[in-house]
Amino acid sequence: MFIDDLPTPALIIDAGALEANLATMAQAWPGNRLRPHVKAHKCSALAKVQQRFGHSGFTCATPREISGLAKAGIEADFLLANESVDPARLGAIAGTGATVAVDSDETVHAAARAGIKNVLIDVFVGLPRCGVEPDDAARLADLARSLRMNVRGVMGYEGHLMMVADATAKRDQVSAAMDTLRGCAEKVGGDVISAGGTGTWREHLDTGITELQAGSYALMDTQYATLGFPFRQAVHVVGTVISRAAGWAVADVGLKALGMDHGNPEVDGYDVWFCSDEHVTFAVKRDPNAHGAPTFLPKVGERVLVAPAHVDPTMSQHERAWVHRDGLVVDEWAIDLRGW
Amino acid sequence: MFIDDLPTPALIIDAGALEANLATMAQAWPGNRLRPHVKAHKCSALAKVQQRFGHSGFTCATPREISGLAKAGIEADFLLANESVDPARLGAIAGTGATVAVDSDETVHAAARAGIKNVLIDVFVGLPRCGVEPDDAARLADLARSLRMNVRGVMGYEGHLMMVADATAKRDQVSAAMDTLRGCAEKVGGDVISAGGTGTWREHLDTGITELQAGSYALMDTQYATLGFPFRQAVHVVGTVISRAAGWAVADVGLKALGMDHGNPEVDGYDVWFCSDEHVTFAVKRDPNAHGAPTFLPKVGERVLVAPAHVDPTMSQHERAWVHRDGLVVDEWAIDLRGW
Repeated sequence: MFIDDLPTPALIIDAGALEANLATMAQAWPGNRLRPHVKAHKCSALAKVQQRFGHSGFTCATPREISGLAKAGIEADFLLANESVDPARLGAIAGTGATVAVDSDETVHAAARAGIKNVLIDVFVGLPRCGVEPDDAARLADLARSLRMNVRGVMGYEGHLMMVADATAKRDQVSAAMDTLRGCAEKVGGDVISAGGTGTWREHLDTGITELQAGSYALMDTQYATLGFPFRQAVHVVGTVISRAAGWAVADVGLKALGMDHGNPEVDGYDVWFCSDEHVTFAVKRDPNAHGAPTFLPKVGERVLVAPAHVDPTMSQHERAWVHRDGLVVDEWAIDLRGW
Repeated sequence: MFIDDLPTPALIIDAGALEANLATMAQAWPGNRLRPHVKAHKCSALAKVQQRFGHSGFTCATPREISGLAKAGIEADFLLANESVDPARLGAIAGTGATVAVDSDETVHAAARAGIKNVLIDVFVGLPRCGVEPDDAARLADLARSLRMNVRGVMGYEGHLMMVADATAKRDQVSAAMDTLRGCAEKVGGDVISAGGTGTWREHLDTGITELQAGSYALMDTQYATLGFPFRQAVHVVGTVISRAAGWAVADVGLKALGMDHGNPEVDGYDVWFCSDEHVTFAVKRDPNAHGAPTFLPKVGERVLVAPAHVDPTMSQHERAWVHRDGLVVDEWAIDLRGW
């Protein structure tokens, strides 16, 4: 079967591009220096490929991502890099030995009550989301230890710096955020300093963290593509043209097949006008410098490739991904870590 | 069980608000004058409630919505108000007697080959998406009849007019679009003129269409709420506060629990700053006129209600909805019509 034979919309993963991305990252961040973030793909089969590239730990955003990886037979050093006060869900992952991020008395107590043995102190490093105030990190670590949990170290996610355009500003701001985090690490104890993402994979080579939490690098999206990294677009949604007018065409890849929080997707070779629930409307490129772009619209029944603007919430819209090599479908992977 | 006991994020439906919305619409558009659009909820259990309010037909955007309704035991006059050239999926719904929208020779031929017996000619009425040019509608109808299909009439979706703010402009533009559609109806034949949506439910009382395709009215969202209709917000996502800082709090309702194409959701009583994959960051309202809004942030472990900006792609993110009356959970509905 070829990707042109798939019912659409079909999530497809280019195995060659994926492997190239994993190889590039594993060279810069080998073994347990990288803790791949599975929220970016929610696919245990893809996590197994990441294991084959040498990584022995995973970052997760939901308890179900961890329990799903375990259910798929993956034994690894799991990190729930997110706060939870849900006793049932924390209890369900305690048996995996998972490490859980905590940033408040409530989350420390919830982890302890659920039988969690290992925690990281999640430190605020500038992104207004989770993370304890740096001045309070050591106290929180003491609280966790008093409840007989092992404090493995600290984490801090500088998500607000992923897309900083100026290279010098980005390096300086990441460096400053990590000065804060390293300072906390000394006071907190443990040997883990976990931070970063695909957007700051290069900056962190000099920040002294012990592990990088990157996810998007594996499959990529059009937003990260703007940063010029050596990672290729490895995931697309294949669509079928279902309607064509004089000035536009419509394919069956809509809001429910894409993550839309970063805006419209790209349709390979065309200008995207807008998406509806089950449609993307696109037209011939207006840019006169778009050399090589099609000057005619595809016909009804022809296929188009749609590249998502944000990979994480695109993956979670699909039940499965089709893995291909040069268009030949070689595998089918369940997106089995969806939900909570 | 109460909604405060649900694991979060939890999609909840207020049964009283839903029934009020269904009653209001059924009074204006009774029986088969309304063809509720199931793409807005993707839930066969909710469709059954709509049947109890007197509606005997359904509008669908995907073949799976139709096959899923049939699998749930619903017998109805199904309309696939969307184009498809997928022989397997069209074939799978042919046995239900479904009517299928067509707007090109290719879609007419695909329907005929798949054994579809009934079609509507989908006419372009201003939204650059699907729909045949009005001048070509009669020819397409003849083609369908030549292939032994029954042409039941026309449909035309004026989606570009749903949010027009000025009442007079909206009425005039909807009226003009429907002049086009009625003109096609005369040439095409059949007795169905199907159009509209929740945004134009009032305008269509005077346009001469035979049925309205409305979906969002049942559950509503914050975008439609801006139009001042007598439909109440009947769906929310319940979140748990998992982190709190001096100036903001974070609940576990993120991009993967919401449709984001209409922007950020609302967190009841607070200002929303941004969403991440599994988080919404919010703060105390800055508007000094927000009388009655909380002046303190909720604590970790407390619950918040999140109202989606766009209901359709919010529903498709969830496996199930919990139905409640005044907070008491009275039912669990599978969102069973997801996918394609």
